[in-house]
Amino acid sequence: MEINIVQEKLAKALSIVSKVAAGAKAQLPILNNVLIRVDDGKVSLTTTNLDMAVVSYLPVQNSQNGVVTVPAKLIAEFISNLPRGEMVKLSANGEKVVAEAKGFRSVINGALADDFPELPEIDESKMMKIQISVDDFKAGLSQVVGAASVDTTRPALTGVYFNTYEGSLYLAATDGYRLAERKLAERVETEVKAIVPVSSLKEVLSSIGEDVDEIEILLDETQVRFNLGEVEITSKLIDGSFPDYRQLIPKESDITVELDKSEMVRVTKLAALFAKEVGGSIVCETKVEEEVFVVAAIANEFGENSSEMKVKANEDGKVTLNSRFLLDAVNVLDGKKLSFGFANRLDPVVLKGLDGEKVIENYVHIVMPLKS
Amino acid sequence: MEINIVQEKLAKALSIVSKVAAGAKAQLPILNNVLIRVDDGKVSLTTTNLDMAVVSYLPVQNSQNGVVTVPAKLIAEFISNLPRGEMVKLSANGEKVVAEAKGFRSVINGALADDFPELPEIDESKMMKIQISVDDFKAGLSQVVGAASVDTTRPALTGVYFNTYEGSLYLAATDGYRLAERKLAERVETEVKAIVPVSSLKEVLSSIGEDVDEIEILLDETQVRFNLGEVEITSKLIDGSFPDYRQLIPKESDITVELDKSEMVRVTKLAALFAKEVGGSIVCETKVEEEVFVVAAIANEFGENSSEMKVKANEDGKVTLNSRFLLDAVNVLDGKKLSFGFANRLDPVVLKGLDGEKVIENYVHIVMPLKS
Repeated sequence: MEINIVQEKLAKALSIVSKVAAGAKAQLPILNNVLIRVDDGKVSLTTTNLDMAVVSYLPVQNSQNGVVTVPAKLIAEFISNLPRGEMVKLSANGEKVVAEAKGFRSVINGALADDFPELPEIDESKMMKIQISVDDFKAGLSQVVGAASVDTTRPALTGVYFNTYEGSLYLAATDGYRLAERKLAERVETEVKAIVPVSSLKEVLSSIGEDVDEIEILLDETQVRFNLGEVEITSKLIDGSFPDYRQLIPKESDITVELDKSEMVRVTKLAALFAKEVGGSIVCETKVEEEVFVVAAIANEFGENSSEMKVKANEDGKVTLNSRFLLDAVNVLDGKKLSFGFANRLDPVVLKGLDGEKVIENYVHIVMPLKS
Repeated sequence: MEINIVQEKLAKALSIVSKVAAGAKAQLPILNNVLIRVDDGKVSLTTTNLDMAVVSYLPVQNSQNGVVTVPAKLIAEFISNLPRGEMVKLSANGEKVVAEAKGFRSVINGALADDFPELPEIDESKMMKIQISVDDFKAGLSQVVGAASVDTTRPALTGVYFNTYEGSLYLAATDGYRLAERKLAERVETEVKAIVPVSSLKEVLSSIGEDVDEIEILLDETQVRFNLGEVEITSKLIDGSFPDYRQLIPKESDITVELDKSEMVRVTKLAALFAKEVGGSIVCETKVEEEVFVVAAIANEFGENSSEMKVKANEDGKVTLNSRFLLDAVNVLDGKKLSFGFANRLDPVVLKGLDGEKVIENYVHIVMPLKS
C-alpha cells in the first residue's frame, strides 16, 4: 500500500473519520483504528464504533493497492501537525505504516485489516431515498435535536424520528417533557418511519463539508446512510416505536400571547437564576387588566424574582414550567417574535415562531407544565 | 443602603469581585457573599476567600449610606442579564437586597455585614512600593507563571517569586523540573523578596481593566496589594523560602544551536504524540556532520517518530527532555527564533529568545533533562 497526497487533504479526511474511532476505552482495540484501503487510485478511510461507520474517499495520483489499519487519532494528529502544502507519503510495511514528509518520518504500529469489522450494507431491495438541501437539513435538525432524551432506558426517545405524514417529511424528538417537530420537505413520495440516533446525527452535522449543497439519505428497515459528497456515514436505526406524538400537540390554545423573543430569553434566564433551588420551576402568567405577561421564580432560599413584559392577553392564566426547557424552546424558534399558547395548568404550552404577525408553520415546540 | 447606577458599570464591577467569592463549597457561607458598602457617594464591593480579597470601587450619584452582604454570583448574574443602559437600583431591607430596573424586580436574601471577615491591611511602616507598566507586567508574568508548581506539598514553589537582585526586579518560578526567570524592571530602589500565590496573580491578570496603564504593587512582610485603578486586590504572601535559583542557571552551554521557533513547536508536538506511552520523553540531538537538529520520540508501543531541522552545531550532543516542559518553554519565548543550549545529558537545557541573531537577555527558561 502506498499513497502520495498533499497534507491538507489527508488531514481533513482523517480528522472527520478519527472522531468515530472509539478511543482508548474501546472493548475491541481494532475500533481505535482507521482502515486505509487503496484500490486503483481510490483511497478510502474507514472507522466504526459498531453503531455507526464513517468512510471518507480521497482521489490520489501515485498509489499502490493495499489495505492496513492504524490508530486513527494518532495518525490524524500526526498528519494534521505536518506543514500545509507538503506532500505526504503513507506506505505499509506489514502491520506498520510509515508516514513521511520532507524532514519528518514516523513509523506507526498498526494491525492487519483482517480483524477490522465488516461494514453494514444498506439493503437495496428495501431502500428508500430522500434528497434534501444541506441548509434545510442543518436548520431543521438543530431545532429538534435538543428535545431528544439522554436517558438510555427508553432508547426510542434518544433518537430523532424521521417520519412522513400526508406526503411531507417531518423530524420529531421528545424526552417526555417537551417535544419538537419540524417539517423538513413536502411532496415526499416514499413512506418513512425511522428513529436515527442523536449521536449519529451529530456526527453527520459535523462532517458536512463547505462544498456540499445536497445530502442524500438512504434508508432500509434497520439502517440509514447519509451521503455527503466525499463522506458517507452509515448508522444503525434505533429499534423501537416512537410515541404517536401528533395527538399530544394541542390544535388550539385558550390563551395566546405574542412575545419578543430576546426579551423572553432575558426574563427566563433571570427567573432561572432564582429557580435553581426549586428544580428550575418558574411561573408564567397573563394579567389582562395590567396588560402584562409576568415570568417569576417561586420565592425560596435565594429570594424571589419577577419580570414583566407589556402584552395584550385575552384571558388571565398561569402555568408553571421548567425554565431550562422553556429557554431551550425559545432559543430554537425562528423569527424575532414568538407565540406562547396555553390553556390551564395541565395542558401543554405551545411555542411557535412569528414572522411579523404570521405564525411560522413549519415548526412547533411543546413543553409540558409542572404541577404547581 | 441605596445605590442608583447604570447597569453596565455595576455588572462589570460585580463580575470582577464575584470570581473570588468562594462558591457553594465554602466552609463559611458568608464567603459566598459580596459586601456592598455605601459611604457618602462612594460604593465598594468586596469579596474574599480568606487568602485574598478583591475590592471594586464605584462612584454613584444618588445613594444612601449603609452596608449589606448578598450572594455574589447570584447578584452578579442577575445584574449582568439586565438590559444595557438601564438604571438599576439596589436597596437594602434588613438582610435582603432589592434589585430593580424597569420591568424587573428581585429580592435577594443576604446576610448582615457583621459576619463578613475583616480585611487584611498592609503594614504601612514596613511597606515597599513598586510601579510597573501593565503591558510589562502582563508579558512578564505570562512567561513565568507556567513554570510554577501545582504540588501543594511544597508551597513555596506554587508562587511566583518577586525578587530584587543588583538593583533590578525579577519574577521567577520553578517546579523543580523547569525554571523561568524574567527581569521586570531596572533601577528598583527597594529590596523585595516575596512569593505571591499563582492563584492571586491570575486574579490580578483577569481583573486589569482596559483603561489601566500602570499597576502599583505594595508589599509588606506578609501581604501584597495590587492597585489596578478602581480595583484593589490584596493577597497573603506564601510563607517559605524560595530556592536560591540563580546558581542553577548555567552561565554557558557547551553546545548552542539557533532554531526557528514555529518549527520547534511543530517537531516537539509531533514527537510528543508518540511519547505519551513513555511519560513524554523525547530526545533532542545535534549531528554536526549532517548539519541537523533531530527531535525524536523513543520507539514504543505506538511506533517511532523523528523530525529534522537544518542547523549548524559546534559539537555532537544528545539530551532527553519532557516534551510538555519543552513545548511550554518554547511557546513563551519572545522572538521568531530561539537559542537552545545544552552540555551533557545531565546539565540543564537553557532556552532564550532571539531577536534576529541577538539573544533577548531579559528572559531565561531552563529545563532539567530526564535520565535516559
